[in-house]
Amino acid sequence: MSRDFRELLEKQWDAGNMLCVGLDSDLERIPEAARTADVRESIVGFNRAIIDATKDLVCAYKPNSAFYEAHGDEGWNALRETIQYLLEAAPGVPVIVDAKRGDIGSTNEAYAAAIFDHLHADAITVQPYAGGEALKPFLEREEKGVFVLCRTSNEGSGEFQDIATEGKKLYQVVAERVSREWDKNGNCGLVVGATYPSELRTVRDIVAKMPLLVPGIGAQGGDIEKTIAAGKDVRGRGLIVNVSRSLIFASSGDDFANAARTEAQRLSGAMRKAALQ
Amino acid sequence: MSRDFRELLEKQWDAGNMLCVGLDSDLERIPEAARTADVRESIVGFNRAIIDATKDLVCAYKPNSAFYEAHGDEGWNALRETIQYLLEAAPGVPVIVDAKRGDIGSTNEAYAAAIFDHLHADAITVQPYAGGEALKPFLEREEKGVFVLCRTSNEGSGEFQDIATEGKKLYQVVAERVSREWDKNGNCGLVVGATYPSELRTVRDIVAKMPLLVPGIGAQGGDIEKTIAAGKDVRGRGLIVNVSRSLIFASSGDDFANAARTEAQRLSGAMRKAALQ
Repeated sequence: MSRDFRELLEKQWDAGNMLCVGLDSDLERIPEAARTADVRESIVGFNRAIIDATKDLVCAYKPNSAFYEAHGDEGWNALRETIQYLLEAAPGVPVIVDAKRGDIGSTNEAYAAAIFDHLHADAITVQPYAGGEALKPFLEREEKGVFVLCRTSNEGSGEFQDIATEGKKLYQVVAERVSREWDKNGNCGLVVGATYPSELRTVRDIVAKMPLLVPGIGAQGGDIEKTIAAGKDVRGRGLIVNVSRSLIFASSGDDFANAARTEAQRLSGAMRKAALQ
Repeated sequence: MSRDFRELLEKQWDAGNMLCVGLDSDLERIPEAARTADVRESIVGFNRAIIDATKDLVCAYKPNSAFYEAHGDEGWNALRETIQYLLEAAPGVPVIVDAKRGDIGSTNEAYAAAIFDHLHADAITVQPYAGGEALKPFLEREEKGVFVLCRTSNEGSGEFQDIATEGKKLYQVVAERVSREWDKNGNCGLVVGATYPSELRTVRDIVAKMPLLVPGIGAQGGDIEKTIAAGKDVRGRGLIVNVSRSLIFASSGDDFANAARTEAQRLSGAMRKAALQ
């Protein structure tokens, strides 16, 4: 089966989906109802329930590798099994591993092998700091998506990202380089936090129709209407709006999967409405 | 057993050691003599042989997580077992996991748990892009070392790292922030490539006695004398000079461990000589 990240994503956008569910499945927050004595089983079981409850409402899933690595080989196995389940149960939904990797080129070959060949993810998030030359092992995978950190959602993201250079800020320079030089295969995207709608608009003006992965809605406080107004492209799409904790942990009771579905429906509806405005 | 990264490192420097062996144990390059049918066993067996052959000559070991992740849970297990072996067989030698991680704060908590609590490493390499606020979960671990990427060793590292801002380059601003603001617990270091000796000198002038982790000797072409002349502090120390591929894969024959020892002796000798000049 040949999968192409951008094709899968465009089909989801065709259907009006722009909600991305962040599978940041922190074991300590997984409801009792989904837990067993086994770490891997608990995480995979929880993820399967969340996926089954939301797969018709989303444009992508985005597990963050940190919450799996915290449990070592068992966690890594849980991540692999989660992606395997996604490929079977939701074959039309692309999987972005939010790994924020970035090393020199020869080492990035090994990271690309880990994320794309071992885990079989469709896309990855990467760091810009070492430059585009170092990221070639990711960028050359034409069928995979490569989301470069541009403006992160955290409070202190401006420390370097807002540094002034040649009349611009660093995050603007990153957006320009990625869209004008690194995106030769049409497989790049950028990560821009929903907590910075004005910067999101600036980035959209630079990158035309490039996909923007937007974290920060929900627990981090970003606003759906402002995010979509600032970030949508001329076609009214182009956004992958991620919600993690406030959706997957919407309830800590036995009804956690139904509660996640209700929250996904609410968010998806709000996003569709905002996209029409 | 309470371990403190900086204490372990200073003791190694007292003994004149500044060679760091990079355990970038790419399975495809592990000699036949060290391989079995089992991935984990092959990697751990190779690493044990390299460790046994070099542990009296080094100031640190630095496994790069990418080469382990490429083999998923088996690779992650091999990394954990390698560190476990290091803590037993070379208890005076600190272990730096070269993971180049970096996310928002709440996610970095999970990465810190993965590297420090699960793998039991003494230090980690991290990305500066999200700023110091995001790195708090690492920086607050007083007994652990936190090496921030400053000037990477790859050919294209200047794309963003040399960007001009307020009369300085970005890598200089990173060095200033880390040494003046992030290093409250005295546990920070910087990564500066041996392939850029002039930038290494600039960074040393900014950071006084902060440890600098210097990759790029060996396969990447950095020069030992220039590196040590440019990077040593006023005490003639302060450097962790990493060599990976050219040392651990010095021979592909049955003599691989002896060949690694011979290369480690040669490098260690050249470093001691250069430090006295």
